[in-house]
Amino acid sequence: MHSDQPIRSQHSDFSSDERDALYRVMAERRDMRHFLPGQRVPDEVMLRLLQAAHRAPSVGLMQPWRLLRITSPELRQALVTLVEEERQATAEAMGKRSEEFLRLKVEGLRDCAELLVAVLAPDDGTVFGRRTMPRDMAVCSVACAIQNLWLAARAENLGMGWVSMFDPARVRGLLQLPEAADPLALLCIGPVPAFYEKPMLELEGWRYGRPLDDFAFTDRWPAASAAD
Amino acid sequence: MHSDQPIRSQHSDFSSDERDALYRVMAERRDMRHFLPGQRVPDEVMLRLLQAAHRAPSVGLMQPWRLLRITSPELRQALVTLVEEERQATAEAMGKRSEEFLRLKVEGLRDCAELLVAVLAPDDGTVFGRRTMPRDMAVCSVACAIQNLWLAARAENLGMGWVSMFDPARVRGLLQLPEAADPLALLCIGPVPAFYEKPMLELEGWRYGRPLDDFAFTDRWPAASAAD
Repeated sequence: MHSDQPIRSQHSDFSSDERDALYRVMAERRDMRHFLPGQRVPDEVMLRLLQAAHRAPSVGLMQPWRLLRITSPELRQALVTLVEEERQATAEAMGKRSEEFLRLKVEGLRDCAELLVAVLAPDDGTVFGRRTMPRDMAVCSVACAIQNLWLAARAENLGMGWVSMFDPARVRGLLQLPEAADPLALLCIGPVPAFYEKPMLELEGWRYGRPLDDFAFTDRWPAASAAD
Repeated sequence: MHSDQPIRSQHSDFSSDERDALYRVMAERRDMRHFLPGQRVPDEVMLRLLQAAHRAPSVGLMQPWRLLRITSPELRQALVTLVEEERQATAEAMGKRSEEFLRLKVEGLRDCAELLVAVLAPDDGTVFGRRTMPRDMAVCSVACAIQNLWLAARAENLGMGWVSMFDPARVRGLLQLPEAADPLALLCIGPVPAFYEKPMLELEGWRYGRPLDDFAFTDRWPAASAAD
């Protein structure tokens, strides 16, 4: 399996229909905060979502993601409280946009059918591919797993929202995570009334995405970048 | 568009065929290091890949990714040299697995049709969703963009490899990145002889992935986790 002996693959090429399906999932994936209350996600669907996350790439095959499924109503309520506290702290840090920020719906923890917490595991000492950027590469692997899960949820016609408004130390304490583990996301998952046509922050007039041209360069960073 | 008025969506549900396509892309995506030399990727395909990356979610809509397409043979060669230096440094850090490590093919920079550098942009001060974890959330957004690009490449029947064996300071200098920008990935993209049946590190006997059950917990971190 060295450079002169690549393994022959049994995999067939992807068709244009399959490619189009992938691109539609990416285009219609949204960060959802509105969920239909009182719903559930079938166990076999949850398993597919977790498997999708677990199929992510990881640096040196370290698989640093851990996924906690929150089933306890008390734990969910405690997380709601932590997020609300951080929402208030964020509002204070927003300065003149504080009032506008407080009118946004920023999470759907109460109504979503399933709540997962994605955690970066304590460092296992993997050197392969991360000697110079150990933490960033582990974080990237967890993010890739979450993105896989997000796309899978969309293809299952379920919404997902990534909530990062929390104090990681308090989530760590609540969920009895090891001191060296870092919660990175509260993932709200479940049926939604409808998927937003555009990112909700755009629909609300909070902020607008900029075009690809501002972010794609050739060979070197531009002297004057439109994006910066 | 507040909680009582969700926008009605024009999007139709995804079919089971579309869902299966997504899952097959995820299952057959690989971190590729073997590429067919002397190939090119059509411009319209490259554009689709970049658009896929740019459709990623980002915290507070900050879109912190920047994608540099390397077209200069001199720059590519300089990157090859930087990666080779880090490969040697990694080997030294590997201890007793050093010789075994040096036999692995860890990158395909010379042969791949296209080489992109994915960069975390200088922080734009976004507070939304990242007051408590500013750097991690920005890094996660770049990783989600890379994962989108990776899945898109696979669906286009192109290989991609994420090379993280480099000193970010030296890549920053080479590509004249701002001091506050961090290169996170060299992305090798192009036609491949065949896609690996399993992760190459497994085929080589370097390391084996562990099953989902080791990583999925309920409510709290387990007292004794099989994974840790």
